Amino acid sequence: MLVSDPVIVVTTVDSQGRPNGAAFGSYMRVAPLIMVAIAPGHDTYRNIKDTGEFVVNLPGKDRLDSITVFGKSYPEGVNEIEEAGLTALKSSMVKPPAIEEYKAHVECKFKWEKDVGSHMLVAGEMVAGSCDAGLMDENGHFDVVKAGIVHCVRYPEPVYVTPERYIEGKR
Amino acid sequence: MLVSDPVIVVTTVDSQGRPNGAAFGSYMRVAPLIMVAIAPGHDTYRNIKDTGEFVVNLPGKDRLDSITVFGKSYPEGVNEIEEAGLTALKSSMVKPPAIEEYKAHVECKFKWEKDVGSHMLVAGEMVAGSCDAGLMDENGHFDVVKAGIVHCVRYPEPVYVTPERYIEGKR
Repeated sequence: MLVSDPVIVVTTVDSQGRPNGAAFGSYMRVAPLIMVAIAPGHDTYRNIKDTGEFVVNLPGKDRLDSITVFGKSYPEGVNEIEEAGLTALKSSMVKPPAIEEYKAHVECKFKWEKDVGSHMLVAGEMVAGSCDAGLMDENGHFDVVKAGIVHCVRYPEPVYVTPERYIEGKR
Repeated sequence: MLVSDPVIVVTTVDSQGRPNGAAFGSYMRVAPLIMVAIAPGHDTYRNIKDTGEFVVNLPGKDRLDSITVFGKSYPEGVNEIEEAGLTALKSSMVKPPAIEEYKAHVECKFKWEKDVGSHMLVAGEMVAGSCDAGLMDENGHFDVVKAGIVHCVRYPEPVYVTPERYIEGKR
């Protein structure tokens, strides 16, 4: 049973300020924290430990192919944002850039980590966020249907689903 | 920005064996663990601490209304499974029952907890699981479209989304 969160791309910089991006699917939010499961050998893990900062970026289905790039392994120092044909967007509170073409960005400061077996659970405090103004509805909610957020439901041959309409529930 | 995991209903029993069920939306999987954010005053939290066991149940959109029942507060000892008009299904490895009408069930044994601020992160090891045989595709994948799993994207006036078709990605 593989039922996943929306795919996120985590952007970081290394100790020399060089940007890195990688796709993740296993994370959770308990405000003000976001916790991401990251393998301890991963560049993203090392960069977060070295700099204390990361940005969570939410791709839309219009940039589905770029997720493939962020899922691959590149040598240290390769800028996956450029490899994916995307644009670095200056963050407001942290050094790592966000991804301009993606739908929403959450800037985070490292708080703690916990060993959960195969991965480290890396917790960051969400300190700033941005999204396209056109993706907020009249009540200030982020419109997941218009944004076309993507959930990866098969891996490594990727298959995605995306929300296509809202269903009203009862309170 | 509220972009959630599929809704789950966690079933537990209290120290006297009385079943309880409640809906949660903040959790993650890092095999073999599942970690659920639970408020420490919640019956589900007390039951897991008392008995060391819980079951994660995945509702489909055909039982959307039942999620509302599992989101409400009831006095201790009320059986929310009965309140929701659903059927308790005997689990194979743990005492808490699963929910027969729901699409998939994962039996868990408590491993550890971590205070993450407003909630406790409660980690259980997934020890057994079941789903409708008709929901497995030829490769043994759980079919989230056929199951009609539901993501809650607005709260407390609930609005849901459900996957409606698959989108092939590139490796």
